[in-house]
Amino acid sequence: MPDHHSSSPDLLLRPSWLWVDDAPRSGMEIAVHEGRIADVRESDLPVNLPGRLLMPGFVNAHSHAFQRGIRGWVQCASGDDNFWSWRERMYQLASTLNPDGVQALSALAYLEMIQAGFTTVGEFHYLHHQPDGTPYADRLELAHRVVAGSDEVGIRMMLLRVAYSRAGAGQPALPEQRRFCDADMDGVLADVEALRALGGFSAGLAAHSVRALTEGQLRALSSFEGPVHAHVDEQPAEVAQCLAEHGCRPLELFDRVGLLGPSFCAVHFTHPSPNEVALLIERQAQVVACPTTEMDLGDGFLPVESLQSVPLSIGTDSHVRIDPLAEIRALEWHARARLGKRCVMVQSENPGALSSRLLSIGTEGGARALGMNTGRLEIGCEADLIAVDMGHLACATGPLLPNWVFSGHPTQVRDVWVGGKQVLWDGHHPEETRIRERALAVLKSV
Amino acid sequence: MPDHHSSSPDLLLRPSWLWVDDAPRSGMEIAVHEGRIADVRESDLPVNLPGRLLMPGFVNAHSHAFQRGIRGWVQCASGDDNFWSWRERMYQLASTLNPDGVQALSALAYLEMIQAGFTTVGEFHYLHHQPDGTPYADRLELAHRVVAGSDEVGIRMMLLRVAYSRAGAGQPALPEQRRFCDADMDGVLADVEALRALGGFSAGLAAHSVRALTEGQLRALSSFEGPVHAHVDEQPAEVAQCLAEHGCRPLELFDRVGLLGPSFCAVHFTHPSPNEVALLIERQAQVVACPTTEMDLGDGFLPVESLQSVPLSIGTDSHVRIDPLAEIRALEWHARARLGKRCVMVQSENPGALSSRLLSIGTEGGARALGMNTGRLEIGCEADLIAVDMGHLACATGPLLPNWVFSGHPTQVRDVWVGGKQVLWDGHHPEETRIRERALAVLKSV
Repeated sequence: MPDHHSSSPDLLLRPSWLWVDDAPRSGMEIAVHEGRIADVRESDLPVNLPGRLLMPGFVNAHSHAFQRGIRGWVQCASGDDNFWSWRERMYQLASTLNPDGVQALSALAYLEMIQAGFTTVGEFHYLHHQPDGTPYADRLELAHRVVAGSDEVGIRMMLLRVAYSRAGAGQPALPEQRRFCDADMDGVLADVEALRALGGFSAGLAAHSVRALTEGQLRALSSFEGPVHAHVDEQPAEVAQCLAEHGCRPLELFDRVGLLGPSFCAVHFTHPSPNEVALLIERQAQVVACPTTEMDLGDGFLPVESLQSVPLSIGTDSHVRIDPLAEIRALEWHARARLGKRCVMVQSENPGALSSRLLSIGTEGGARALGMNTGRLEIGCEADLIAVDMGHLACATGPLLPNWVFSGHPTQVRDVWVGGKQVLWDGHHPEETRIRERALAVLKSV
Repeated sequence: MPDHHSSSPDLLLRPSWLWVDDAPRSGMEIAVHEGRIADVRESDLPVNLPGRLLMPGFVNAHSHAFQRGIRGWVQCASGDDNFWSWRERMYQLASTLNPDGVQALSALAYLEMIQAGFTTVGEFHYLHHQPDGTPYADRLELAHRVVAGSDEVGIRMMLLRVAYSRAGAGQPALPEQRRFCDADMDGVLADVEALRALGGFSAGLAAHSVRALTEGQLRALSSFEGPVHAHVDEQPAEVAQCLAEHGCRPLELFDRVGLLGPSFCAVHFTHPSPNEVALLIERQAQVVACPTTEMDLGDGFLPVESLQSVPLSIGTDSHVRIDPLAEIRALEWHARARLGKRCVMVQSENPGALSSRLLSIGTEGGARALGMNTGRLEIGCEADLIAVDMGHLACATGPLLPNWVFSGHPTQVRDVWVGGKQVLWDGHHPEETRIRERALAVLKSV
């Protein structure tokens, strides 16, 4: 950590308001040095971000970037449509993408994230091999391409290398799942270590789900040190299959194999039993909620009222929508509609307290889920920052934080810095036209 | 209706895409004459709205404009919070507003509506009298002020004059409800007729709820010809009180008094019984859904799956959020999450069909709810139009309509015309600064 008294900062940001504790505070300055926050201090110098609320960038803790490519095409169906029929359409795209296509769609998704105020993404990466399952000459080819997509855009990357081996209990992988699959968990763990050794981004592990791995394979992953993410209890069918195969529910199986702990993130968790909730809390594990996707795919609602002590974070998952406000608002709003009351997730006299809690689920909650040093305005943290235009009429009266969270729009994000380096200028990214046109060309060819 | 062959149009709009049937169509032109759509035709002239999707403006079928003033202040609570405690805070504001304040907050809400693409508002207007219940020298003073607010902004107005007389079964109005109240329903009906006679806006009737009126008063309103709106089944307590007082549920009471029919709109309808659903369908009555407010206030979810044959519309109600896309998306998304399936509200091979159905709930659905000649791109309809920027990265790939509905932002609305008169230019309204500052001054003084 740099000594901010002896070195001159690379960047000094003085917004009209800085989000500090539960309120926006004026007369504050952030100093950035070598990519990190070097100081957060009072200042009586003129603001250089007028009309802006400065806050940590949002952290997208669950992304399947390539799924951005099916957006728009899957909002129709003839006959019953559900998670599983949606998955078939998603697999069609997954089966056809080559490395250039993976990079193009990743960059497209990540650029939309930057524009919406996400400065970090946790990519739940499961497109590993060639369509027939044969590894590329470089086993990590597609991981490199996802990372290259993030580099083009400038978003901070945690690549969660996914382990996947089968279609379900006793069922070999379907042809369209072969490129996700590895039989050997040591190889998977070696891949994560190889990715970690590269530098420039972070890497962690994902166990896709109890559907996709045997108990032995899950156990083989339990030695991993670092963030471990898994889809848990997303669909009732997944729970039923787990009960039939293992005599226990998904989170209970993750615990039995030794994977459950403070670094474990249960993604979705829309259908937990009371025992799974108690187990999650006991093991201090975390939940990544993806409400817009969980609605879109008919997964269900997260029972946040049972998870008040659980570290929560958000993800945009399928990218039907890339909008951190929509995710965090939904957590509170769905609870209200389900329970018939208001202000479920926090009780306070302070008008900004609930909105601050929700915002921090989107910021430091995500950083915790990914084990990363971002999402907070603290000395030594990565200088991942967003400047939000509070001039929109939606925020014209009343306290700024509730206005931004409940009434605002992600398009109010105007300037974005990742590691102190600016990547969005008044809503614009220098590579937008190229990234957009390349993605269009990819989708025309698949 | 003007003869479009003999008169020259006042306005010719040639967008990149026009929303026609279930798809955006290129090479189309809209001609406007004397405020109405004079023609919708093919054209090979160069577009004059490049990159824009042109569509009918949204219709906001349920608004309490002054409630915009408590936005942001009510997202906190110490102790239990619910609809009824929220209502106390709303009443505090309602009790203090003078006519200037009513106009100022109305204009603020309506301007945010215009910016979000609403071109018509149905104002469920219940602030009638002085705080102690004495009528103003002009009985219609506050109605005039609401209309003046709409005139400042240029939004089309349907003023639904609300009848209200009591706090609940056998209970006189609370002191803070006195300014809503009239004992004499003939006076209420005379007010609507007086408003209708003024011209320049439309007027209709609202029966506040079964809480707020006796059975006799409801019956006295049943002679009214035109749109009749009422809050129905918003909260379980309201249903229980109705059962206790009348031995039937709210919609059954509205039917018993003769109010139920094709012009009747049940606002909310979040807790209907199967019999109420059947009755609504049998009487060809309508539903106005306000999902963001219904979440925010802990009302619940509309059972849209039971209402597939019912004309639906949307409202922003309390204005916690002014965003037509959020309302229409929620109708479909909440159904998916509740039912565990996808594409609930329409089945089609056509990718745009579901989004088109949802959009039309926001446009012609609202027009039907208010009995107004808007919300459609048809010759003779009011030229209430919005031009949406499809250049946002959210809409970069895939079909435009699903992108706009599920992934887009209301800030993409750039230009707005009401009755052929432009009221928003690239997101800007000429009166924004004045309207914003006046509303801030009002809220500082209450």
